[in-house]
Amino acid sequence: MPEKIRLGIIGGGGDSLIGVLHRVASFINDNYEIVGAVFNADHEQSLSFARQIDIPTNRIYRDFDTLIEEEMKLLPSERIQVCSVLTPNFLHFPMAKKLLDNGFHVICEKPMTTTLGEARLLQKAHEKAGTVFALTHTYTGYPMVRQMREMIRAGELGKIHKVDARYYQGWINSVIHDPEERSRVWRLNPKKAGISSCMGDIGVHAFNMVEYTTGLQVKSLLCDFNYLYDDNQMDVDGTVLIRLGQHVKGVIRSSQVATGEENGLAISIYGDKAALRWEQERPNFLYKITDTDPVRIYKPGHAYNSKLSLDGTKLPPGHPEGIFDAMANIYLGAARAIRGEDYNDGEFPTMTDGVRGMTFIEATVASHKAGNVWVDMD
Amino acid sequence: MPEKIRLGIIGGGGDSLIGVLHRVASFINDNYEIVGAVFNADHEQSLSFARQIDIPTNRIYRDFDTLIEEEMKLLPSERIQVCSVLTPNFLHFPMAKKLLDNGFHVICEKPMTTTLGEARLLQKAHEKAGTVFALTHTYTGYPMVRQMREMIRAGELGKIHKVDARYYQGWINSVIHDPEERSRVWRLNPKKAGISSCMGDIGVHAFNMVEYTTGLQVKSLLCDFNYLYDDNQMDVDGTVLIRLGQHVKGVIRSSQVATGEENGLAISIYGDKAALRWEQERPNFLYKITDTDPVRIYKPGHAYNSKLSLDGTKLPPGHPEGIFDAMANIYLGAARAIRGEDYNDGEFPTMTDGVRGMTFIEATVASHKAGNVWVDMD
Amino acid sequence: MPEKIRLGIIGGGGDSLIGVLHRVASFINDNYEIVGAVFNADHEQSLSFARQIDIPTNRIYRDFDTLIEEEMKLLPSERIQVCSVLTPNFLHFPMAKKLLDNGFHVICEKPMTTTLGEARLLQKAHEKAGTVFALTHTYTGYPMVRQMREMIRAGELGKIHKVDARYYQGWINSVIHDPEERSRVWRLNPKKAGISSCMGDIGVHAFNMVEYTTGLQVKSLLCDFNYLYDDNQMDVDGTVLIRLGQHVKGVIRSSQVATGEENGLAISIYGDKAALRWEQERPNFLYKITDTDPVRIYKPGHAYNSKLSLDGTKLPPGHPEGIFDAMANIYLGAARAIRGEDYNDGEFPTMTDGVRGMTFIEATVASHKAGNVWVDMD
Amino acid sequence: MPEKIRLGIIGGGGDSLIGVLHRVASFINDNYEIVGAVFNADHEQSLSFARQIDIPTNRIYRDFDTLIEEEMKLLPSERIQVCSVLTPNFLHFPMAKKLLDNGFHVICEKPMTTTLGEARLLQKAHEKAGTVFALTHTYTGYPMVRQMREMIRAGELGKIHKVDARYYQGWINSVIHDPEERSRVWRLNPKKAGISSCMGDIGVHAFNMVEYTTGLQVKSLLCDFNYLYDDNQMDVDGTVLIRLGQHVKGVIRSSQVATGEENGLAISIYGDKAALRWEQERPNFLYKITDTDPVRIYKPGHAYNSKLSLDGTKLPPGHPEGIFDAMANIYLGAARAIRGEDYNDGEFPTMTDGVRGMTFIEATVASHKAGNVWVDMD
Repeated sequence: MPEKIRLGIIGGGGDSLIGVLHRVASFINDNYEIVGAVFNADHEQSLSFARQIDIPTNRIYRDFDTLIEEEMKLLPSERIQVCSVLTPNFLHFPMAKKLLDNGFHVICEKPMTTTLGEARLLQKAHEKAGTVFALTHTYTGYPMVRQMREMIRAGELGKIHKVDARYYQGWINSVIHDPEERSRVWRLNPKKAGISSCMGDIGVHAFNMVEYTTGLQVKSLLCDFNYLYDDNQMDVDGTVLIRLGQHVKGVIRSSQVATGEENGLAISIYGDKAALRWEQERPNFLYKITDTDPVRIYKPGHAYNSKLSLDGTKLPPGHPEGIFDAMANIYLGAARAIRGEDYNDGEFPTMTDGVRGMTFIEATVASHKAGNVWVDMD
Repeated sequence: MPEKIRLGIIGGGGDSLIGVLHRVASFINDNYEIVGAVFNADHEQSLSFARQIDIPTNRIYRDFDTLIEEEMKLLPSERIQVCSVLTPNFLHFPMAKKLLDNGFHVICEKPMTTTLGEARLLQKAHEKAGTVFALTHTYTGYPMVRQMREMIRAGELGKIHKVDARYYQGWINSVIHDPEERSRVWRLNPKKAGISSCMGDIGVHAFNMVEYTTGLQVKSLLCDFNYLYDDNQMDVDGTVLIRLGQHVKGVIRSSQVATGEENGLAISIYGDKAALRWEQERPNFLYKITDTDPVRIYKPGHAYNSKLSLDGTKLPPGHPEGIFDAMANIYLGAARAIRGEDYNDGEFPTMTDGVRGMTFIEATVASHKAGNVWVDMD
Repeated sequence: MPEKIRLGIIGGGGDSLIGVLHRVASFINDNYEIVGAVFNADHEQSLSFARQIDIPTNRIYRDFDTLIEEEMKLLPSERIQVCSVLTPNFLHFPMAKKLLDNGFHVICEKPMTTTLGEARLLQKAHEKAGTVFALTHTYTGYPMVRQMREMIRAGELGKIHKVDARYYQGWINSVIHDPEERSRVWRLNPKKAGISSCMGDIGVHAFNMVEYTTGLQVKSLLCDFNYLYDDNQMDVDGTVLIRLGQHVKGVIRSSQVATGEENGLAISIYGDKAALRWEQERPNFLYKITDTDPVRIYKPGHAYNSKLSLDGTKLPPGHPEGIFDAMANIYLGAARAIRGEDYNDGEFPTMTDGVRGMTFIEATVASHKAGNVWVDMD
Repeated sequence: MPEKIRLGIIGGGGDSLIGVLHRVASFINDNYEIVGAVFNADHEQSLSFARQIDIPTNRIYRDFDTLIEEEMKLLPSERIQVCSVLTPNFLHFPMAKKLLDNGFHVICEKPMTTTLGEARLLQKAHEKAGTVFALTHTYTGYPMVRQMREMIRAGELGKIHKVDARYYQGWINSVIHDPEERSRVWRLNPKKAGISSCMGDIGVHAFNMVEYTTGLQVKSLLCDFNYLYDDNQMDVDGTVLIRLGQHVKGVIRSSQVATGEENGLAISIYGDKAALRWEQERPNFLYKITDTDPVRIYKPGHAYNSKLSLDGTKLPPGHPEGIFDAMANIYLGAARAIRGEDYNDGEFPTMTDGVRGMTFIEATVASHKAGNVWVDMD
């Protein structure tokens, strides 16, 4: 293994949860070293956080543009190689684009952009740059999600006939039901959060999981949102009927008012031979069911798993790894790509996933606004 | 307790699964005695079955009409009081109607009829007869489903915002994928099975569960079916978007090609205070979840349960009761009604449930055929 | 099937839980008809209960001796064939013995007797009578327990190396911690309840399950009881180290002060090839685990199950059957034996199980009282 | 937060699982920086591993003694502050002792030593040194284990009456049943592995968990081992009856031939008011059960948890953290202690836990060898 990849971080300072998730994930497989950052819009806080986590402050920049400017002055052998973009949603696009335009690799939080138009512009910038772009759909980093994908690829389900994915959370309850709170919070403000709350924030993960595991594309969809209150402009709940390639039908359910649900992402794929079920809150258990045999529970780290799955497990069976490890697997895949090493398809979500995600979000909004009609994803 | 209720059985002979379910259920609480029957269209088989289960053969009739005719000749104090109708679907309506017209109480398997038109005719016959009509939506007999209903009634969930019900089975796989089989089986033949397979056979249970537990009515729906093959005329899978009273939205998912699913009925109701989750295959566990407190698992037989729930449990906590006991609870409720005793709303499904169910089935078909549009349930 | 077996019931009247369990179990497979009974020591209550459950009162006898006397006057073709003995523990022995001595078949609740001496006398009476004696170790009636036994017999676990069984309940808490209550209750009074509370009431079920599923015999044991209070003379908790044939070691854990446990019987058997785990409160799930393969969950009603298991399931997979059905399976096995039909070893617990159980209980008491030393079971 | 703690690593190079666990754990909360190491007995491999994980090689020493010698030459402000000892068991004692004697803080893998005598010598060295000594009983780092401890401390269980802990694994099957393998492997060689395999390797974790969660001490024990084969000198399975303070009784079960069990550590504590249950393989679910209320499931990150528990969770509820995070919590506690900050009792296992563990192991061996008799732990 060559020396560590020089990583820059944009955002994620202070108590940021996404910050600790990315930082730890970058450490886990000994591939990255944080060499530069703009942790916070406030430069003093940025410096203070760098000191707190004991990172040298000489490359903690005043702002994003300064980071680019100063790093470009450094020799390529010293320069940040890849930047993790952890800023508020509306900044993902301009920052990622400028990074790509300047030849950096990018690890970008989702949603990749706030519109499909931006996504397509970013895709072009990426094609031109030829660097690595990884989108952190974290859940695809779980070993048993990867195992699911590989079992489907290997034909273990036979012809797929039905897809059912769900992402339910309850957290928005505490703001949605209070008129003042819901008018104030940025997440329910379309000017700040983009065109969708529920589908854009979590539904898109369920969508990504469907395409990731099945290898099929959603061709068209019909969506019904729920806003709950007349004065609320953002979806906080929605159900999407989907039609995929190979005449597969399915449903994606997403809610932020599913009281008591914590991070309830779950997916079931039904083929004519067998089906697979997985839930994010018990990530180390993958169920294979058939009409005739005992239920099988697959767990990480066993030799029966695929290479893609085993690659994402560090300890022997029975030692639970969790979401930090899932994110670390995505960083691991990106590291391989950045280093020009071989890596398997499916090791990290790409620009294509980002464009698909934005297409999905815009299509759900379009379907709902047109009165719950079918909208093409093409 | 007065003497046992005189029960007649139509259908359910031989190896019939529905037969053993009803027969055992009628025994369980010591309320019924089988005194007459037409177990089978073939009279010899009917007699032979009566001998096999050691029931006197003198009132095992040649056919249904003979049963009515002969029983009507008996004194009211000897005559069958209630008949369980366990025949193929298309016979439910004519038989139940004739029974009601002759003053019998009726316990009827679902679907109650094959069309909404029939259901309304039956409803009128029932209003005229004034006898008891119980529809065996078996799952409402489970103590924890009843507990769910009572907790919602008591306001423990607050304002309901989201409803999610599912009924997934895999059993049709073995016939649907074989061209000859699927052309032959009566269940996929609209002439014999009515207008819907998946929604009519199992989706309607999920629908009934939604209305039973929430006390809300589905006002309109939008449905997408899947037939899988061009030469198949019956839905084997479908997803229904629903809108209920009080601006509640939800989804009902139903499939007969959900490979590996056995009898996967499940329901989640989300209110602004709490949510409840229940699954048929683990019927003795009811989950109450909130955004702030530990998850609570309610189990049968504890003093914290409602009267309606406790009434349906015979043994102390930890002694699993199952589907025979659920059906027995419905027979128990019907017995109370037949005897003119007090009984609680919710002890057994009624004619109203039957009419609602047929309305639902017809609405799903109408919505699908019109291109997945919203259809009113009124 | 010939006509129903004529069943007498001793005890189990009124609100008796064991009464309803046996009565329903006898109905379930259409094999038995209750023709005589002494439901209660109080004859009026016995008659009243017979009327309540609508059983003819002409053979509701004043007391047990009268039942024997009067039934013996009847023709064999009219006489009670089998009696279920559901009376308090200390009456099991004299009643079962008198029944056997008079040529009746017997279905007896456990513990079979209150001492091993009685058990051996009963065994002799049984050998002499040559009738059927079934002991209601109910849990061996569950289809997945039977499947466990058959899988072990078929060698699926390889050489067994470890056995771990548990029966934990919390119900005695409400009496044990109150000085007055614990001095009053018959269960903690050795004069009324025999030599053991916890081990005699529930530990013996765990022991029976070990011998039933493995086919091995416990050869010696070392036991430590807990009485909790100096003024309490009965064990309310105990752990037993066991040594079985074939050099197998294991442990049986039993407690009535395991707060919050309802009916927590569970068993794990570990062989060198695989292991099996089963829990009474989720009776329809049997886990097979190995060091190298996905966990397998076996469920009732599937064709992959053994004949002995399938025989005990009435409905298709996914329709939960419970403890009434387990008991009904034992009644079914007894019916086959009473009718002289073929039946499989393992269909119902026998006199041998009863003697083994009493041997176990006495050995645990002896071991504890001698200061936790090894005691032979021979 | 001051700058990072300078960490040295002894052992854990190459593919070592314990190595990656400690290394990642040290990163997770931004408290440690690895500045020196002897990753491997082979210096070239040690250097090569340092390059692989991109750690400066200038302080990668030839051997442990050189590390001490060279580090002692450095200024205290540059010197390694704490060393993680990850070497084979028999080296824990001499290395930890020398580190303490030279004023280093120590983080030590378990078993702390190979004999109780060594443990007591180490304890004295520690008292003299006055530095921090943390023993990595990893499982006490799980948030829900900490919650368990705090709930018990707060009296939520009332008076404890019963303790039941288990640690079952199946991994030794692959060597124990092969005569050559079992004669060769160091773990089953008492000269290399110490006096106990099963109890020393895993049983001691269950023991530690009992004392950690209850705050009670095991006073005496009675143990029965299983060696399986005459030519095997090490226990691969054992059951221990325990008596704790306050007249509590319990059982610790441990096995390495529990086929199919992966890392099956589990603990149940029963009080007169309530009980708590936890399993290592589902570490984010803590069950509280009582005789009268719904079961409660506690999960990490909720405000209802204790401070000690919340301190060990980084993300909101529903984002599964695992064993790396548990170990990281122990490193976090040790960091606080090393920095002289306030920390809570229970944040990391100490020398006292190490001495208790060795006392337990020696007592189990003594009890077994004396013929399964009670042995005091004092």
